[in-house]
Amino acid sequence: MTTKDSLSLIFAALADPTRRNILSRLSQNPATVGEVAELFEISAPAISQHLKVLERAGLIERTTKAQWRTLTIRTEPLNEASAWVEKHRREWNQRFDRLEEHLKTMTKKEEK
Amino acid sequence: MTTKDSLSLIFAALADPTRRNILSRLSQNPATVGEVAELFEISAPAISQHLKVLERAGLIERTTKAQWRTLTIRTEPLNEASAWVEKHRREWNQRFDRLEEHLKTMTKKEEK
Repeated sequence: MTTKDSLSLIFAALADPTRRNILSRLSQNPATVGEVAELFEISAPAISQHLKVLERAGLIERTTKAQWRTLTIRTEPLNEASAWVEKHRREWNQRFDRLEEHLKTMTKKEEK
Repeated sequence: MTTKDSLSLIFAALADPTRRNILSRLSQNPATVGEVAELFEISAPAISQHLKVLERAGLIERTTKAQWRTLTIRTEPLNEASAWVEKHRREWNQRFDRLEEHLKTMTKKEEK
């Protein structure tokens, strides 16, 4: 598990509705662990486990100021995930465009 | 596992380098299972397992024509994944914009 590549860690972290909800909350504003825990009807250890997965994927950052521990979302991993998805959507769509172009050429040839 | 929401299935399917490589291959062109298997130095049952995960997430489609079984990428789940990631990138960036706006207003007030 420790040798997983960053993109796998990011996608795995996003593959859970509670973790996505935590990120949704943090995309509005940074929050303390307590504020995040309040939103979910699950145990503190379960929240803690989810936060660990998000932190390991680089999707959140914990900062400590005096006794306050704040969670902040980090967008770099979202950029990385987005780049991968967009690349593959684009390539597949371009393939369709090429196919369409090819079909048009074929039709023109047949018409002649 | 069977009750997982579609977005969790999609992200979980993307959370593996071999599965992402299979999708990369298929984003270029549809291929047979054999053609996909050739690209990876892993066992046929392992490939089969990866294909099942991709299929369950709706990321690939199997079609059978005569004895040929073809795998095709499907972009709808990529659109869904992309929409989620983009929404959260955007919200966080807008938060930064609002913060910047707020700081500008504060600075102007101080200057007066």
